[in-house]
Parts: sequence; structure tokens; C-alpha cells
Amino acid sequence: MSIREEALHMHKINQGKLSTGIKTAVKNAKDLSLAYSPGVAEPCKEIYEKPETVFDYTIKGNTVAVVSNGTAVLGLGNIGAEAAMPVMEGKAVLFKSFAGVDAFPICLNTEDADKIVETVKLMEPTFGGVNLEDIAAPHCFEIEERLKKETNIPVFHDDQHGTAIVTVAGLFNALKLTGRKFKDIKVVANGAGAAGIAIIKLLSSYGVRDIIMCDSRGAIYEGRPEGMNPVKDEVAKFTNIGREEGTLEDAIKGADVFIGVSVAGALTKEMIETMNPEPIIFAMANPVPEVMPEEAKMAGARVIGTGRSDFPNQVNNVLAFPGIFRGALDVRATHINEKMKQAAVEAIAGLIDESELNADYVIPGPFDPRVAPAVAAAVAKTAMETGVSRLKADPEEVRKRTMQLSLIGKGE
Amino acid sequence: MSIREEALHMHKINQGKLSTGIKTAVKNAKDLSLAYSPGVAEPCKEIYEKPETVFDYTIKGNTVAVVSNGTAVLGLGNIGAEAAMPVMEGKAVLFKSFAGVDAFPICLNTEDADKIVETVKLMEPTFGGVNLEDIAAPHCFEIEERLKKETNIPVFHDDQHGTAIVTVAGLFNALKLTGRKFKDIKVVANGAGAAGIAIIKLLSSYGVRDIIMCDSRGAIYEGRPEGMNPVKDEVAKFTNIGREEGTLEDAIKGADVFIGVSVAGALTKEMIETMNPEPIIFAMANPVPEVMPEEAKMAGARVIGTGRSDFPNQVNNVLAFPGIFRGALDVRATHINEKMKQAAVEAIAGLIDESELNADYVIPGPFDPRVAPAVAAAVAKTAMETGVSRLKADPEEVRKRTMQLSLIGKGE
Repeated sequence: MSIREEALHMHKINQGKLSTGIKTAVKNAKDLSLAYSPGVAEPCKEIYEKPETVFDYTIKGNTVAVVSNGTAVLGLGNIGAEAAMPVMEGKAVLFKSFAGVDAFPICLNTEDADKIVETVKLMEPTFGGVNLEDIAAPHCFEIEERLKKETNIPVFHDDQHGTAIVTVAGLFNALKLTGRKFKDIKVVANGAGAAGIAIIKLLSSYGVRDIIMCDSRGAIYEGRPEGMNPVKDEVAKFTNIGREEGTLEDAIKGADVFIGVSVAGALTKEMIETMNPEPIIFAMANPVPEVMPEEAKMAGARVIGTGRSDFPNQVNNVLAFPGIFRGALDVRATHINEKMKQAAVEAIAGLIDESELNADYVIPGPFDPRVAPAVAAAVAKTAMETGVSRLKADPEEVRKRTMQLSLIGKGE
Repeated sequence: MSIREEALHMHKINQGKLSTGIKTAVKNAKDLSLAYSPGVAEPCKEIYEKPETVFDYTIKGNTVAVVSNGTAVLGLGNIGAEAAMPVMEGKAVLFKSFAGVDAFPICLNTEDADKIVETVKLMEPTFGGVNLEDIAAPHCFEIEERLKKETNIPVFHDDQHGTAIVTVAGLFNALKLTGRKFKDIKVVANGAGAAGIAIIKLLSSYGVRDIIMCDSRGAIYEGRPEGMNPVKDEVAKFTNIGREEGTLEDAIKGADVFIGVSVAGALTKEMIETMNPEPIIFAMANPVPEVMPEEAKMAGARVIGTGRSDFPNQVNNVLAFPGIFRGALDVRATHINEKMKQAAVEAIAGLIDESELNADYVIPGPFDPRVAPAVAAAVAKTAMETGVSRLKADPEEVRKRTMQLSLIGKGE
């Protein structure tokens, strides 16, 4: 069977990939009287009187909505809410498999940002977190920003922040390997979409000062007369301090790091040769990267990461989102802040110790069982330290519980 | 432990009652490439090209949203969306336990009917059906009516139709036992809420001609000067043909059947004594019925049903909703129409054959394993016969599948 046939068969044989499970069997009148009427009235009354107990008595504290409108699905583009369902179900399966988080797909039949914001706000009583997914830019920025302000549960746009966290974790180790520091490097990012912007913002929070972002018109700079939008205006404010104009070819000269979230073939061997010695390349266009690893290596690249599982250093979001929500849910966080994202970066990077670190191993593999528990523990601890957790427990207790739940998630 | 302590403990120990389950394990790169990127793109593309295949490749075809805003929860009233969560989770657990239906609670933080309608419409890509629950009248009527018109998935307000179907099933057998026919009986219903109105509408569809509905002001009749609303105006059009005025005490004289969906103690011994011989009493106020069974029996009642599990003939919605949605989902129904509700009534009633039928056994017990499969098969068949099914399969094949799925739902 081809991959296509195999994938269709796998989805069809079970009518999708997700189901509901029961924590409490209902086999007799006693069970029924506790799980449903009349006993169920007791937790209802408790929550009515003490709203925070909703985390004790209901699924809210372990449940995340995977929200999409299907406007930017994988490489397929705007295929709509129904056709996006297999991806959102798949995401929910990964949440459960990797971190014991109960996630549920919510595919919304609208391209109106206001309606998405309002719908998610209305559903807040049910969910302990919201993972936004495959919503086209620039709506995705507005939706995330508004939901972060207008709800009290963590909201995380994985296409932005998941990708950013894993990329920066890889870069963290690549810098260590090549003896560089964040504050000294020059980074050129190609592609001004959701992921690219999140990556340069996260790099900025690590003290990277010399960043140039390029789009299809070349370097973005303040006051560029064409092809700007409010998001690029914001980018121009903290990048490209020298207001350099020109193409990617111009910008990349003397750079230490290339971040590609653009299209196949965007980076040539010749461009790499103009970078600083031992450059670091993250070429994440899918399925064909901006430059093939073999070619980049021949041009002098020291570390190369891609989005693909068949090359070393795969930037796979599954390293981030399960552990991040696990940690956020465990401490009943109200938000996922920058410090929590940095904690995730360092937890991922920190799993590779110096003795193992090498050019083909700056990012842990997606099935490394240490990742989600480590990310969860770091995120939970940081949430407590930065005052966005509702739970005032001992961090060590939370860590133990986190690990236990992660094991449950794996069905162990 | 008291029931209260036991119920709170049971809800707290597992952080609620529901979880997600995985139909497809993701343990290695191959699994990941099929369930997620890149393989997941294949079902996405299929659905984009042939929208009806969403039922083949995703969870939509087995998934029901349990939607509430918490404005009329059990006997607790308007406790809000968060405090309603335990009930909606419980409902989802029953859907799974009794019929293998994957149901998910969606508690919406609004009392605005328009917003509920819009939210459910936006979520239609994810769900194969919608069970409305514990939404206060009169909004519940408008919400259900609009959703039935504006969506293409079954929408069912269980507080209305679930109760109505089980009550009428009980009455079906009680009439048989006492040698009466629907067209000849006089029915008095006390309580003009959602359930009461659904019951008299369903009775009407069975040819009952003599119905008087009472509210706290007494008999409802066309042109009554006080305490009317659009729903009662509609009720007045097809009931109380003689436009009789007066109290419940007046109305009940000479009645064959009393339907109580009102308050404890509303029906006295003296009133029962004025009914026709061998009257049938459904006294469903919760937790204390309109009249206690013992007292009703002493006053001459032949058959007595209540909402309680500690008396015979319990009117329990769990006899209806799991099988109804199982059947509707199995044939990918677009609606639940009157004929499908009647099919459910007769499937439930038909499980008690004449040799077993007696005054204490006109309704099957809630854990009778024959109920959900019988209801599902009857509903599926009727959906196909009345042209509201998308699936054009052989009804017998559907019946087999239905039974199989019901067994899965019970974890067998």
C-alpha cells in the first residue's frame, strides 16, 4: 500500500482517531446515582458556590480545545473546517499520547476572527486551555492576542510558538556546540509568516540583537514602501536596526544563523558560502526544505535542522505542546507567558548533555520519553514562579504528579 | 459516607468523569507519519474534495455535543455553565456506556439564545449530532427549532423529547394493560415546562384528542387573559377544545391519565378519586413526586410511574437518548423527526411482552441491555424510511452494526 492508501485506510477503519473514555463505570443504579442524578448535584452545588473547584470536580483541569477554522492546514492551505478535522484529531491524539492531556478538536466554520474569539470565550467553562491550530495569518495573531487578554486559561498558537520553542531549543544547543552566544550572533529569517515571527520574537527575548527578517520582497525594514502590514511593521521595529535593504542574498552575508520557514530551494549553496564560518541552518519548509542537508553541509554548514523525520535534528512541535500544556494544566495556569516558553526551550535543549552533543544531535528525537515530563516540570515551576498559576502546591509535588500523569498518557 | 460525600469523592478522585481515548497508537515515526503529518493530509484532501467523506475519515459520525448553558440544571435552576459541567460530563458518560456514542460536554457561558445557536452552527463540522440539555424555557424551544432548521445534523433537546418518549412508552403499555386506546382517553398534564409540552405534543401525534394542560394558574385555554406566552398559546390551539376554565382539581375530573411534571404534592388523593376508574398516574416531579405511589394506589390508581429509581416504572431518559443518537448516527441522519421519536416509543414499550406486562412493569428498567440496541435499530430504520438518512445501506446491516457498537460501548 502507498502512504496515501495506508493513511486513508487507517483513518477509515476506526472512523477517525479519537474517542471518549469513561473514568467512572455506570453499571448499576448506585453508579448512576453518583455519576448522574441525584448525586451529580453535589459537585454542581460546590462549583456554583466555589467556582475554582471546577478544576477539582470536572474534566476542565485536564482538557484542551484544539481550535481551528481550517484556513491554513499543513501545506494544503484554506481547505475549510471539515477537511481540517483529521489534523485536529491527530493533534488531540498526540496530546494524549505524549502527555496524558485530554484534548478535543473544535473545528469552526468561519473565517471571521471576531466569531472565533467569541466562540472560544463562550466555551471557556469547559476547557482548561486552548491550542489554536492552522488558522491563517494575520487573523491568527489577533485571535491569540485577544483570547490571551479576554480569557483566564492558557491560549497557545502552536504554529507560532511550538515551532519557535523547538527551533530555539535546537539553536540553543547549536550555539553551545559552535561556541557562540545569543547576543553576538547575526540571524537571518526567511518567511514572515506566523512561525517566522514567533521565532524572531523568542530569539529577541534571548538577547539576539542582530536579526534581519526577509519576505518574498527581501529584507523587511522600517518604512519599507511596499508589502508591509501591521505585523511586519512591528517586526521592523525590533529587527534590522541598520535598515538594510536588499534581497535574502544580500542580507545573509556574514550571518551566523539561517532560519527558513519559507519555500523549497530558497537558500542556495552560494548564499551559505557567504555566511560566517560554521553557519547554523534551520531549513524548515515542508516537505522540501529551503536547502537539502547534504548540499548545506557541502557549502560549509556545521549544524542543519529541518522539519523532516528522515534527517537529523527534526524540528517537531510534538517536543513542545504536550509538555507545555501538561505543565500549565498541572498548576492550573491562567496564561502561558514568555518565561514559560523559555523554560520549555531550555528543558528541551537541556536533555542533550555535552558529552552527547554533536552536529547531528542538537534536538532530542520526537519519541524521547524524557521530553514531555521535563518540559512539563519546567513550565509548571516557571508558571508558579511568575505568578500565573492558580495552584499553590509544592513544585516538587507538581513535578511528581506531572510525571505520573505523563505515564498514564502513555497507557503505562 | 453520605451520598454527598461519596459523590464529591467520586468526582474529585479522577478529576471528573470523562477522558479522551485513542483509536490509533502513536509509538513510532511510522505511526506519527500516518496519524499526523504527512499522511494526515490524505484524508484532509479527500474530505475537501468529497465533503460527505468526513463521516468516513473522522470522529464526526460517532460524536455528539452535549450543549448547555446551565440555566435549568436538574432541580438546581440557573447555576451557570461551569457548575453545569458535572451533569454534562455525566450525560456524555451515559452516551458512551449505554450506546457507544462519543459525546463531549460543551458548556457555554451565555444566556443569549442567538449566541448559542450561532456557536453550535459554527461547531457543526466537528459533531454528528447535538444534545441540548438543561437550557431554560422558553429559550430552549427557540434554540432547538432554529438549530433543526439551520443545521444538517440531528438536534435533540433531551429534557423535552427524552422525557416525552419514555413517558409515552410507559403510557403505551399502561393503556394496553387497562384496555384503553389513545383516541379515547382524557389526559391532564400538570406543568407547562419543556417536558410537559413535549409530552402532550407526542401524545397528540398518537391521536389523543382530549388533553388539558394546567399550569400554576390552572387550565390553559385559548384566550386565557393571564399568564400566557407564545408556547402556551400554541398549546391552547390543540388542547382543551372545550375551553374549560378552572383549577387542576376541576380539570382532572373524569380523566384517565395524569401527567405530572410540576411540584411535590400537586396531586391529592381526593383528586385521584374523581378520575375515571383505574386511572394512570405519571408523577414525575423530582425528587418528591406530585403524589407518592402508595397514596395514589390507595386512591384507586392502577398504574403509577415516577422519576425515581426506588419505585416501579421509573421514567428515566437513559432509556431513550443513547439509542436514539446511536440509531441516528448509524445512518448519518440529518434530523430526528416525529416518526423517529415514535419508533423509539414503540421500541421501548415493545420490550415488555404481554405475558410480563403488569401495573408495576410498564417501563423497562434503565439497565435492561436490550433497550439501546432496540431503540437504535428502530430509529435507524425509520430514519431511512422517512428520508432523513445519508446512508443508503441495508437496514439489517445497520441493525447489526448498531448492536455491535452498543456492545463496544459497554466495554464488552
